[in-house]
Amino acid sequence: MDDGSLDTELDFGDDELIPAVAQDVETDEILMLAYVSPQAVAATKETGLAHYYSRSRDELWKKGGTSGHIQRVQEIRVDCDGDGLLYRVEQESGACHTGYRSCFSRTIDGETVGEKVYDPDEVYG
Amino acid sequence: MDDGSLDTELDFGDDELIPAVAQDVETDEILMLAYVSPQAVAATKETGLAHYYSRSRDELWKKGGTSGHIQRVQEIRVDCDGDGLLYRVEQESGACHTGYRSCFSRTIDGETVGEKVYDPDEVYG
Repeated sequence: MDDGSLDTELDFGDDELIPAVAQDVETDEILMLAYVSPQAVAATKETGLAHYYSRSRDELWKKGGTSGHIQRVQEIRVDCDGDGLLYRVEQESGACHTGYRSCFSRTIDGETVGEKVYDPDEVYG
Repeated sequence: MDDGSLDTELDFGDDELIPAVAQDVETDEILMLAYVSPQAVAATKETGLAHYYSRSRDELWKKGGTSGHIQRVQEIRVDCDGDGLLYRVEQESGACHTGYRSCFSRTIDGETVGEKVYDPDEVYG
């Protein structure tokens, strides 16, 4: 983690947002997919905690700010075109607001394949 | 894989595109991040081979159509909001057009961490 200055190779495009994937650094499980703004990437580099941009709330979003389920970012990788990021993280509890470890807990055919790790009613209720 | 009909829970939004992450089903390495249209998802389900939507070429894109570096999709997962997909794939050769196994072969600080698996000049030259 450095001073938060941005890598000049990133291509945020017209809407100033690019997708970022969070991957569990210990299990390699994919935890979630969200969007980041330049400010979110800078905040992530500066604090070592994953920040995203909430499109629904239209604001910078510190992951786990409400739930405590923070992500400690061990490494940030950039894709070949500079328009996608990979956060390699240590995930506190579960990444998903539904109580699952990963947001990708269902197959496209509706089968549940993920692991529930907390009760969302106790965290958000 | 079924008849290619779409899962009704997917939320493609206004631009009819959502991001899809491809993950190596054997190593759990994240290979690439791209976008899919409803047509791309249907083609993927129908053929068992990963299809995306190329925003630069503005067309349906069969991964490996030029290079032969196809992705056999073992499972498709959907995220909690229905606006992100995970393709669990068997990757032929490398996913990246630069010759690397993964498109995420660099850290944000510019360090190369990925593995080069083919010579792009021989494939695309």
